[in-house]
Amino acid sequence: MGKISLSQGSGGKEMMELIESFKFFRGKWTNSYDDSAILDISDGRFLVFTTDSFIVDPVFFPGGNIGDLAFCGTVNDLLMMGAKPLGLSLSYIIEEGFEDFKLSKITETIGRLSNKYKIPVATGDTKVMEKGKLDKIVINTSGVGLTESVLDGNAIVPGDKIIISGGLGEHAVALLSKRFDYETDIITDSRPLVDEMNSIRELIKYAKDPTRGGLASALNDMAKKTGFNLVLNEIDIPAKKEVQTVVDMLGINLYELASEGRMVCICSEQNSMKVLDRLKSFNDQASIVGTVANITDKKVIVKTSLGKRIMPTPTGRIVPRIC
Amino acid sequence: MGKISLSQGSGGKEMMELIESFKFFRGKWTNSYDDSAILDISDGRFLVFTTDSFIVDPVFFPGGNIGDLAFCGTVNDLLMMGAKPLGLSLSYIIEEGFEDFKLSKITETIGRLSNKYKIPVATGDTKVMEKGKLDKIVINTSGVGLTESVLDGNAIVPGDKIIISGGLGEHAVALLSKRFDYETDIITDSRPLVDEMNSIRELIKYAKDPTRGGLASALNDMAKKTGFNLVLNEIDIPAKKEVQTVVDMLGINLYELASEGRMVCICSEQNSMKVLDRLKSFNDQASIVGTVANITDKKVIVKTSLGKRIMPTPTGRIVPRIC
Repeated sequence: MGKISLSQGSGGKEMMELIESFKFFRGKWTNSYDDSAILDISDGRFLVFTTDSFIVDPVFFPGGNIGDLAFCGTVNDLLMMGAKPLGLSLSYIIEEGFEDFKLSKITETIGRLSNKYKIPVATGDTKVMEKGKLDKIVINTSGVGLTESVLDGNAIVPGDKIIISGGLGEHAVALLSKRFDYETDIITDSRPLVDEMNSIRELIKYAKDPTRGGLASALNDMAKKTGFNLVLNEIDIPAKKEVQTVVDMLGINLYELASEGRMVCICSEQNSMKVLDRLKSFNDQASIVGTVANITDKKVIVKTSLGKRIMPTPTGRIVPRIC
Repeated sequence: MGKISLSQGSGGKEMMELIESFKFFRGKWTNSYDDSAILDISDGRFLVFTTDSFIVDPVFFPGGNIGDLAFCGTVNDLLMMGAKPLGLSLSYIIEEGFEDFKLSKITETIGRLSNKYKIPVATGDTKVMEKGKLDKIVINTSGVGLTESVLDGNAIVPGDKIIISGGLGEHAVALLSKRFDYETDIITDSRPLVDEMNSIRELIKYAKDPTRGGLASALNDMAKKTGFNLVLNEIDIPAKKEVQTVVDMLGINLYELASEGRMVCICSEQNSMKVLDRLKSFNDQASIVGTVANITDKKVIVKTSLGKRIMPTPTGRIVPRIC
């Protein structure tokens, strides 16, 4: 008799298999390989709908807290589809005895972001579980958005460029440093990508945020969606020196580390310098990291000084476990 | 320093205060006293958006499981606003070690309802928490719907009739019987109110489902929304004999017991017999239970053989605790 294992919640292959095994009525919604589902609402617009639950430990970490993740994660999923976020739902599940001031701090974080970016928290729910039946707090945010054109990657052709908006893995390293009491200046990269997306929306064909499962998960989904191989130059993949130090020290995989405020996008070669320039105005580590190849194996290939290797979809328990 | 208490998750006054204390950007969404938020999307239609997390213990109970609640709860919240459900999101948070076959059974339940009522599960998420950090499983469902006219209760006038679609409290008693190993034939009343709502949609002005906090919570919200007193005849409030027996035996309040497949609606006196007849075709305990009074105290009054008393909004820890 099987039991649910931690690896089934890590954002890798097992979770996709678990989800795809569900035989639900889907109607006219589509969401292959994307975090949001899309529905044509018959007036020239598409409704975009997404959900995510946040179980981060620790709840407070350098540069942010679970409230940042719950707001940014869902907003960014809507933005990646090219949608304007219309509103979020906010559902708290709280352990009895959780301190009021912590809940207030989390809520203030969400309120501040909601007001700053004018993205409404439209509806909510609160449940309290008996002490010992939940560790601290879980937050679910779902989101709805509208767009006249979905960023669905269908227009991608060989020769298109792959761009990352900033250094990878800062969120994961911030969490790790807090958990292991390791001294570092790295703080979470979590942020709503509203301004970044607004600045490049008309220039790109497809975008994803490398959250759970990191760059490896995002790019493999993109390769499957486009049908082409994606070829990266390892030397161009951006990461802060302090992040690289922690990665080397712990022997973990930079490409599987979660970022919560970065995007990977694909655009024509012609637009690529313009996209790069605009993204650099937000983060000077933005970088063109690779090219869409004319090979339809749907693989992600990394070119290094020693040759080529495949960057696989993360499987099993992703290290470090951060959600 | 305050701590979160169980009463703050019981669907009563404390939860409303907790939610209303959040200072979020709301944009053009409205949702006063209703479980769903409403947004005019400028093409003659309104988007309806709702969220709910389900933490029921036991996960399996007479007549259903947490999957029934997660599907029906959110679908019914959309239906009560007069909306056609467009799709649900489904987010599982699962304890490591939870048995596969239980997860399959819950998922099959949701799949069966989704296919039967042609309501899509559009998008989803799965998280797994380490053993001991969560008790079994939590499910969040959010839902989106569309309607050309919202059932917002604005047209309610004194003399309108209040109708309940069937016996109260069967869901709560089914849960209690399982928890205390008490022998009863009562099973949960949980069901999507799709057919009921379709049959009376054009005849009614306002509707609510008496879930968490029961009839008392639903009617007090309705009184606040309409601005009028709602006056009920106790003798007309329907409950199965077995439910009444358990209520008397345990000394609990029938009006605060959750039903998951009932609705309370308000319609003109002229339409009331037609609404009653149609609801009776689904449940022969459907009953006209009261009248909208020409008094603007926003209170719920119950007339009994001994006189009148107020039915207050539930406060504190609702007995029995079922979510």
